[in-house]
Amino acid sequence: MGDNDLYAVADFCLIPIGTANTSVAEEIAECQRILAQSGLKYKVPGYGTNIEGPWSKVSQAIHDCHAAVHGKGAQRIATDIRIGTRIDRDIPTGEGNGLKVKRVEEILQKDEA
Amino acid sequence: MGDNDLYAVADFCLIPIGTANTSVAEEIAECQRILAQSGLKYKVPGYGTNIEGPWSKVSQAIHDCHAAVHGKGAQRIATDIRIGTRIDRDIPTGEGNGLKVKRVEEILQKDEA
Amino acid sequence: MGDNDLYAVADFCLIPIGTANTSVAEEIAECQRILAQSGLKYKVPGYGTNIEGPWSKVSQAIHDCHAAVHGKGAQRIATDIRIGTRIDRDIPTGEGNGLKVKRVEEILQKDEA
Amino acid sequence: MGDNDLYAVADFCLIPIGTANTSVAEEIAECQRILAQSGLKYKVPGYGTNIEGPWSKVSQAIHDCHAAVHGKGAQRIATDIRIGTRIDRDIPTGEGNGLKVKRVEEILQKDEA
Repeated sequence: MGDNDLYAVADFCLIPIGTANTSVAEEIAECQRILAQSGLKYKVPGYGTNIEGPWSKVSQAIHDCHAAVHGKGAQRIATDIRIGTRIDRDIPTGEGNGLKVKRVEEILQKDEA
Repeated sequence: MGDNDLYAVADFCLIPIGTANTSVAEEIAECQRILAQSGLKYKVPGYGTNIEGPWSKVSQAIHDCHAAVHGKGAQRIATDIRIGTRIDRDIPTGEGNGLKVKRVEEILQKDEA
Repeated sequence: MGDNDLYAVADFCLIPIGTANTSVAEEIAECQRILAQSGLKYKVPGYGTNIEGPWSKVSQAIHDCHAAVHGKGAQRIATDIRIGTRIDRDIPTGEGNGLKVKRVEEILQKDEA
Repeated sequence: MGDNDLYAVADFCLIPIGTANTSVAEEIAECQRILAQSGLKYKVPGYGTNIEGPWSKVSQAIHDCHAAVHGKGAQRIATDIRIGTRIDRDIPTGEGNGLKVKRVEEILQKDEA
């Protein structure tokens, strides 16, 4: 990859399986600790966790979340990842997810005007 | 369904196909207009749109987003929906997605303490 | 909805949470029993379950899978649904997922020719 | 990663955005050509493409699909990836997705017996 590593804007939702616990908050918190060390821009806005950066680093960060949550005892994990790339314009580093929301808000503000 | 309609906490990401436009902001804004009429709690936090309520109403709202975006010209649409239900406790109406974030934040705050 | 119910080609992956069992095969099998009663075209091809039909019926079938898996003891369930609609052409009932594969195979066969 | 690279059983659905074409068959076929060179086990069973192998290789293969589809002209791409790992037992290489289907079928066969 190297120079060819696409910039990825992503969102993931990790679910531990077989934990005998209906709460997944501890596991999500553990992921946040891992992401804090990744150097990537991330945010937990609700259902999933927004994350963005070079594809290989985003993938590695989510892999490391799996490894950490396995380390906390979860024997099996299933994650859903939504990941997007584009070549029509540069995405300012760390601004991909935020810009999406901003553009939608700008359009809706015109409705009110 | 009726009484048996499960309460659903969901998040969806709608993508128009074949629009000759790499921006999807107009379509997402159109969805927000539809959701505003649905009476459901929703929020655009980044990559996807959080929405929650009775399963049938959440499904209908997303269906109506498809119909509206088709109405704006998109010939094809693909959506990814993450949807959860639980029977171990009641979710206060409209609080499902927010409570998820709150519990994770509480755990992480203990790390700092 | 009624006449306006869009035809949906979908795929879903249901995950029980907090079951103290890393296998989800029993839950997936239970879903198959529910789907068999739905009257819809469905297929378990691997990671997810393909299903298609009028949007409201597809949604109801997945809801009923949740209800049935809750009935088998799972306190919490998270499902990922991919769902597509199109208005550029009619999809022969039950043929949406199969046609996707067929078109890709036809293109690849030309490579070999 | 290296020794710590988790074995991943995955499924992905890639969608080109802004292509002015409602068909995505050419793009999916291009992905198949890329996957054929990846050395990984994969299969197009319907809505998504099953793929499995070491996490980093699975991720790289999907990245390379994005790069190839961008190379064919798609300016923007959105992909949904479902990816699972487990540490309770070894998955025979290339057998993860197939075993899932097999276990469900075995359960349902008992219903008929």
